[in-house]
Amino acid sequence: MPVNLNPPVAANLHPVAGVRLGVTEAGIRKANRRDLTLIELAPGSHVAGVFTQNRFCAAPVQVCKQHLATAEIRALVINTGIANAGTGEPGMQAARQTCQAAARILDVRADQVLPFSTGVIMEPLPVERLAAGLPACQSALKADGWYDAAHAIMTTDTVAKAASVQVTIAGQPVTITGIAKGAGMIKPNMATMLGFVATDAIVSQPMLERLVKEVADESFNCVTVDGDTSTNDSFILIATGKSRARFEAIDAPYWAEFKAAVTGVARLLAQAIARDGEGATKFIEINVGGAHTKDEAKAVGYAIAHSPLVKTAFFASDPNLGRILGAIGNAWGNDPGLRDMDVAKVKVWLGDILVSENGGRAASYKEEDGAAAMKPAEIVVRVDLGRGTAQGKVWTCDFSYDYVKINADYRS
Amino acid sequence: MPVNLNPPVAANLHPVAGVRLGVTEAGIRKANRRDLTLIELAPGSHVAGVFTQNRFCAAPVQVCKQHLATAEIRALVINTGIANAGTGEPGMQAARQTCQAAARILDVRADQVLPFSTGVIMEPLPVERLAAGLPACQSALKADGWYDAAHAIMTTDTVAKAASVQVTIAGQPVTITGIAKGAGMIKPNMATMLGFVATDAIVSQPMLERLVKEVADESFNCVTVDGDTSTNDSFILIATGKSRARFEAIDAPYWAEFKAAVTGVARLLAQAIARDGEGATKFIEINVGGAHTKDEAKAVGYAIAHSPLVKTAFFASDPNLGRILGAIGNAWGNDPGLRDMDVAKVKVWLGDILVSENGGRAASYKEEDGAAAMKPAEIVVRVDLGRGTAQGKVWTCDFSYDYVKINADYRS
Repeated sequence: MPVNLNPPVAANLHPVAGVRLGVTEAGIRKANRRDLTLIELAPGSHVAGVFTQNRFCAAPVQVCKQHLATAEIRALVINTGIANAGTGEPGMQAARQTCQAAARILDVRADQVLPFSTGVIMEPLPVERLAAGLPACQSALKADGWYDAAHAIMTTDTVAKAASVQVTIAGQPVTITGIAKGAGMIKPNMATMLGFVATDAIVSQPMLERLVKEVADESFNCVTVDGDTSTNDSFILIATGKSRARFEAIDAPYWAEFKAAVTGVARLLAQAIARDGEGATKFIEINVGGAHTKDEAKAVGYAIAHSPLVKTAFFASDPNLGRILGAIGNAWGNDPGLRDMDVAKVKVWLGDILVSENGGRAASYKEEDGAAAMKPAEIVVRVDLGRGTAQGKVWTCDFSYDYVKINADYRS
Repeated sequence: MPVNLNPPVAANLHPVAGVRLGVTEAGIRKANRRDLTLIELAPGSHVAGVFTQNRFCAAPVQVCKQHLATAEIRALVINTGIANAGTGEPGMQAARQTCQAAARILDVRADQVLPFSTGVIMEPLPVERLAAGLPACQSALKADGWYDAAHAIMTTDTVAKAASVQVTIAGQPVTITGIAKGAGMIKPNMATMLGFVATDAIVSQPMLERLVKEVADESFNCVTVDGDTSTNDSFILIATGKSRARFEAIDAPYWAEFKAAVTGVARLLAQAIARDGEGATKFIEINVGGAHTKDEAKAVGYAIAHSPLVKTAFFASDPNLGRILGAIGNAWGNDPGLRDMDVAKVKVWLGDILVSENGGRAASYKEEDGAAAMKPAEIVVRVDLGRGTAQGKVWTCDFSYDYVKINADYRS
């Protein structure tokens, strides 16, 4: 069961002028599930993306990077079931054939199409079944197809993940709508499993490329479920330019407001991934301050968030909080700058409860307070490293029997 | 159930002249369990150790380092139940009081005693109960107390871990006997949870300090259960000098043979930790070759060994082998030198089965062969990075429901 994540109501997902979406059951890996999505963009749209840093990055990721560098993007094709990663040169051909098939039916060039895949690694993509499904996607294209698309990109997700806002910026209405998928193999590094956010604002290509990195850093790059960076992580930001709100330079009026609105949607999607993390029963926010650098703060956050011992203690609601100290003490493995961490200066809070200071248990700490603080389905861990002013944030979930069950069963 | 790890037979643990061991039930954290061990060393013994790199390293680890630097060690005191880590200055006092109590009854100086603790982090060590138990340990001291000690240092271990050999080197009989404990919070960095190996050979202090590092590197530093480096890891090597075999300089005859014998005992102990890893149903050896450096090879080994997705696939005996590629692709996070890894050159074998080459699934690979190779309780994963000649090895176990159960229950 996802943690405090009600299925979004389709009526609340605002269409974005210039974007239409259609889905179908293409039978990519299993029958009777929506597994293919086509997103069509109006001419003049700008698109920017950030992608996985996994060296075995998927073929579609490599093709996306090539196409984003050269062409005006007019369509996105997303399949589930097969990741088309660890597939060598045949995988690259399959990704290119995907683009060619979509280009044919939409009457655009193949390099104007971005391909995305998610699912099992190292198995071949059945590109003929994918191509055969595209006409059905095209027939289904509609401006309010976001909720269908949110469903069609799911793999082990238990709920569809979508978010949408309409705001008025500089007197102009702006719509921002996005969808994402991901529940396991989640530790994005520049991106998430798959996230797509579109706005009707006018955003120049350089500003959009800047925005996608900054937004990813404050949203998808703060999530981890199991520390396994996927081969296919992609986060795509689309600006169709159909609204009158215009952001074409860094000094554009209200840029900060616009960025905050886009970031807000991306954060809802990113948090939804942790809330629906495989087997999750708790949503954990880890807030690290007092660091020399933001990277240092996040290194500590990830050390806590990736510790199986910390995650199983959260599952058990057991305030076995020494495990958090143990994880903090290992964080220098993520960031060698932390080698000189003075543990006597580190403070740790669970919710409002001061747990640790002066290298040990806080004098004021009572076991019953810790036990109470471990019970809620949403828990904030706060750490002050006492060595600087930078801070960073990580969202994650606990580690339950069901994580093992899901991952022992997946594929079988 | 530990994987292929029969309880060692007490009769096979050879006493080491100059070493006596005694254990008792001191009630450190729970009643009715042997939780306190005293090891007495003859005058003239040399002792060297390597310790955890966790910044929140335990108070006894800090005291051990001080005492090893200044004194001729005559005794070791080991308690389970409480780790005396994350305990601040009161923890340091408790560790010093432990040494003082042992020094009093053995009539040695406090800085001639090494303290070791393992158990729950951030809870105070009941040093008065520990001190009260020491006379019973002293009364129990005996040369063939190794098997009792192997039991008394266990926490979540399901079997006692011990190994022993007698070899003839340069015409002289040499005995090497060791014990270890550890099943979770295992990713030693310079050492393991707790490992103690003694020999009766004559080894000079500089040679012993060199040996302990080299042996740790080939044994305990190759094991991981869950990637959580403990606050208390310690590996201690003792040379009592009661045999006539003499190794006092790097050019001593038969040094290589002696080192191989010590390493052999340490490797059995280290592998025993992975075989008895919390919830383990499989023992996995990951052999990485074709690397630029040994560190690079081990970074890839750990990336595979720490991936919850790979570990759950082993538990399920599911040849979902793309997860191994995904883990290899993330290894540059452990060693930035791997950023330029050419995945097209990487080859992966499961046992004798070539699984992946040319960036994808091997042409010769058949799913049924992969399925068969996943079934045994012992599996070797071999990786060739195709970029150099260095190699490294990691031992680990799979990730089962029981890991979650054990760690959700531990302490409660």
